[in-house]
Order: sequence, then structure tokens, then C-alpha cells
Amino acid sequence: MTAPLFDRLALIGIGLIGSSLAQIVRQKGLAKHIAISTRSEETFRRAEELGLGDSYSRDAADAADGADLVILCIPVGANEAVAKWIAPVLRAGTILTDVGSTKASVVEAVGPYVPNGVHFIPGHPIAGTEQSGPDAGFPTLFQNRWCILTPPAGTDAAAIAKLTEFWQACGSQVDTMDPDHHDKVLAIVSHLPHIIAYNIVGTADDLEAVTKSEVIKYSASGFRDFTRLAASDPTMWRDVCLNNKEAILEMLSRFSEDLSALQRAIRWGDGDKLFDLFTRTRSVRRSIIEAGQEIDTPDFGRVKPEKTN
Amino acid sequence: MTAPLFDRLALIGIGLIGSSLAQIVRQKGLAKHIAISTRSEETFRRAEELGLGDSYSRDAADAADGADLVILCIPVGANEAVAKWIAPVLRAGTILTDVGSTKASVVEAVGPYVPNGVHFIPGHPIAGTEQSGPDAGFPTLFQNRWCILTPPAGTDAAAIAKLTEFWQACGSQVDTMDPDHHDKVLAIVSHLPHIIAYNIVGTADDLEAVTKSEVIKYSASGFRDFTRLAASDPTMWRDVCLNNKEAILEMLSRFSEDLSALQRAIRWGDGDKLFDLFTRTRSVRRSIIEAGQEIDTPDFGRVKPEKTN
Repeated sequence: MTAPLFDRLALIGIGLIGSSLAQIVRQKGLAKHIAISTRSEETFRRAEELGLGDSYSRDAADAADGADLVILCIPVGANEAVAKWIAPVLRAGTILTDVGSTKASVVEAVGPYVPNGVHFIPGHPIAGTEQSGPDAGFPTLFQNRWCILTPPAGTDAAAIAKLTEFWQACGSQVDTMDPDHHDKVLAIVSHLPHIIAYNIVGTADDLEAVTKSEVIKYSASGFRDFTRLAASDPTMWRDVCLNNKEAILEMLSRFSEDLSALQRAIRWGDGDKLFDLFTRTRSVRRSIIEAGQEIDTPDFGRVKPEKTN
Repeated sequence: MTAPLFDRLALIGIGLIGSSLAQIVRQKGLAKHIAISTRSEETFRRAEELGLGDSYSRDAADAADGADLVILCIPVGANEAVAKWIAPVLRAGTILTDVGSTKASVVEAVGPYVPNGVHFIPGHPIAGTEQSGPDAGFPTLFQNRWCILTPPAGTDAAAIAKLTEFWQACGSQVDTMDPDHHDKVLAIVSHLPHIIAYNIVGTADDLEAVTKSEVIKYSASGFRDFTRLAASDPTMWRDVCLNNKEAILEMLSRFSEDLSALQRAIRWGDGDKLFDLFTRTRSVRRSIIEAGQEIDTPDFGRVKPEKTN
């Protein structure tokens, strides 16, 4: 147990991220009181059943009232409405943050509603699984992952330090950057991979010459790796696409350009070009494993190797 | 131990697949003698050190001489040269098969060299990891995976049955199909995913606005899933691209068409269209898990969830 950093933490939204935060905050004693709010009847009930918080409300303003840390754990498209809703109860000194996958749009949507004296520090924990909802949460989700904060110029340094301490106590390493740069970085490392994964699963689903049962039976040959990302929360990902349009379109256009060149190399049988690309991509994975951001068991450890010798 | 199905098994090539076959054949006693051949000095030495076979040779014809089962475990581009090399020593009644990821090209490359009386049955175990070489093999690699055989019309039924029994003893389920259909199915479930994965890793590697270290640090948000496929053996995948050109180009063109539609939906903010695609792809993963072709632990089991409640 650490000394509590906050008196009252309000979690607005209690899906995978909110639930994981509730659990690690409880485990580490990072807040004296955890107030949970969610719009959905079903999620509300599950959060209560799981005992994730100290108080529960269907009204975000109820939960935020009196909180010294408010974390929006909702799809980015919902941020503006919630900010408007809770603004009247936010008191000076409170830290208001979020966990959304886009940051420039959050600054734009939430910024105008933030009362004077409230420290608005957008954030993004780079952590998640393909599952969603309160049952999907677990307290080690943020362990060894990065959390990016994008504080506007002039944000109170003590507030940034306190939020940094909070995320570190949750197990994360913390980086700060400009929201626009965040959105470019995430467009390539997260948004494009999800869009590509959704797209290829859609393409496979539409084929006439290959049956769905064949796609499923033989998926171990590569396809299944894409289905994890393509099983992510649809609302969250619709909102990401709508709220990081420019950066995503730029990355998509680069990807398509490269794919055309690759397609041309295949069409014209340019084996050397193919071999060169297929070789240089290997080292990227090695670096990711060395950075502790990936497991090094073959095949994601799906099969436990039993060596006979 | 099963009764040996074969007197002498010749494994031509001893990478991930060859090494895994050697280990399961030894474990189950499926052949009285395992003869291993590989061109590479280093691989040869490792195979000997690991004790994968009963005899070793740098000359494929030496290993194949007297074998009643010969399995080509080499990149598909090497099949023709090896078939020509070993043809003189193949005796009537021998089963000649391979493990290549393309099948029409194998029929074309190997078929003309197969002596009368030799049963040529192209095959493809749908199994593998991103690792390669003799050290990467393990005996459970084929467990619960599918193996596709593409016997030419008129192939001896007893030979097909015997090769089927062999793969079943290795842990696989066996399907037979036409080589052209195999190549279409694999183009979507395996070749396209690998090409897309190589491509996106290449695109990320080339960005100027986002540093390599940022790509690596924040890769847990999606990108790292693609790097597993993009770390696969470059020679094998170059040969796949060169030997299944037509089917791959067809799938690539469908994929690109779908991606353009998705790009347009993002550009014009068509949230409903995005939500629909992102929803229907979820069920595909569920089916793959139900079919036993994927693990159902979140995030490929990278993080062990420790529930607090």
C-alpha cells in the first residue's frame, strides 16, 4: 500500500480501462474513495457486482462531485458531452484527465468546458486487450506499459507531477508529448494496424471462392493474428477513426503506396526486392522484444514447445 | 510408440518443419531410420548436435536413396533442383511429398521429374512459428493443426491413405483438395496476412515524423501483433510470393479495393459504415477460437490477468 494520492477518484466509464484502473487503485490504495459512473444499465450492474468501486452512479456529475481526480474512461466520441455535463461540479485544484486513443480531438472537445483552476491533462495509457467491458479489466494491465500525457502549455507542473506519480504507481512509465505528435505516433503504431486488421478480416469474410469454414480451419497460417485486433471494441474504434482522421489518412496513404510497390515486385517477380523487405522487418520485432514490449515465446506461446532433446 | 509406418524417412531440409517432423517421428517411432540432408554447413552441424536423425548427408540423393518416404522441407523455390537431383535414386513404391506453402507451383516444378511408380503427393502442414532453423523445431508443432494434401488425379489410394495416417500420427487432421484451390485459400489465410504484415512494418520503419524508438516503445497498442508474421523466414516468403503470384495478386487487389472504401468512410466521417465493419469482424475470431485454432486468453496471454475479485 502506498499513501493515498487522492481523496476521491471519479472513474467516468467502467470498461476494460476503467475497471483495470479501479482494481489497481484499490490494490495499491491510491485513492480513499473510488466513485464510478456509467450510463449503461448493464455495465452499472456488473461494476457493482464486481465491487469495483466505493460508490456508483448513473450520473457522471454525481461521481465527479468533490473528486480531486476525474478520469474519463469512455470512447473519445463521448468526451464532449460528458465534459459539458460534469463541468459545473469540478472544483479548483481537481485534475481532469482521460484515457482516449486520440489527443488533439480531446483537447478540442473537452478544453472549452474546463473551469478555471481545474488542471486538464489529457492522457493515454498504451495498454489494452481485444476484450471490453468491466469483466475484462485486470490490475496488471498497465504494468510495464507506457502512458502518454499531453498537457497544454502552461499546465501546473505540480499537477503534471502528481498525475505522473499516479500512473507510475499503476505500473506505467510516463512520457509527455504534444497532442498532434501523439496522434501521428498512434496513427502508425495503433490506428493503422487496427484498420488494416479490420479490413483484411472483412475481405476474407466476403470471398466467394474460399468458404468461411476454410478461412477458420486454416487460420493458424497467419490470418488469426489479425483477428485479435479485429475483435476490439467497435464503438471505441469508430470514434478513433472519426477523431484522428488526418493522421490516419496520411498513414493509410503511405501504407497503400508501399503496398503498390510490393504488389509490383510480386507481379514482376522481383525476388531481391521482396527478400530485402522481408529481411529488414525482422529486426523491428527483435527491438520490441528487447524493449520489454513483447513476449519472446514463439507463436505468442500458443504452443508450449516440448523439446525431445 | 506406434508401429513404424516407414523403414526409411528422408527429410530434405531440416529447418523449423523438418526438425519438428524429425522430433515427432522419433517420439512416436513412425520410421525405423531418419535420414537428414541439408545443403547448409551450419544447419548440418546443428542437426547433428541436436541428434535429430540417424544419418546425415550434405547430398540429398544420399538421404533419399532407399527411402520409402521422402519429404521435401525446403523453400518452394528450391523444389525443382532437388527433385531433379534425387529423381535417379527414387524407387518404385516410395512416397514423395513436400511441406511447401504453395501447391500448383510444386506440381509443376517437381511433377516432371517423378519416376514411374513413385507416389508424388504434394502436402502442406498448416503449422509454423515466426522462428526458423533446426533449433526452432518442436514435436507438438502439428498437434491439432490441419495438413492439406493435393494428390494429382489417379494417385494410388493406398499411398494417400498411408501419408494421411502419417500426418495423423504427427497430430494433424488431414484434408485433400485441388492444388489451385489450395493456393487460393492460402493466399487469403496466410500469404496476404504475411505480405500485409511485412508491408506495415516497412511503412513504419520508413517514417520521418515518428522515430523508430517511438514505434518500438508504443508497439503494444497494436503494431507488435504484426511483427510476429513480419519476422518469418525471408527466403521462404520470397519464394511463396514468386510461386503463388496470381492468387496473391487477386487477394491483394480485393484487399486494396476494400481498404479504399474504408479510407473513404474515414475521410467522409461515415461512422455507421465503420461501426458495421468493426462489428462483423468480431464473430470471425470467435469462430476461430471455437474451432480450436486459436487460444482464447486475452492479448494472446501476454499478460497473466490477476483478478482482484
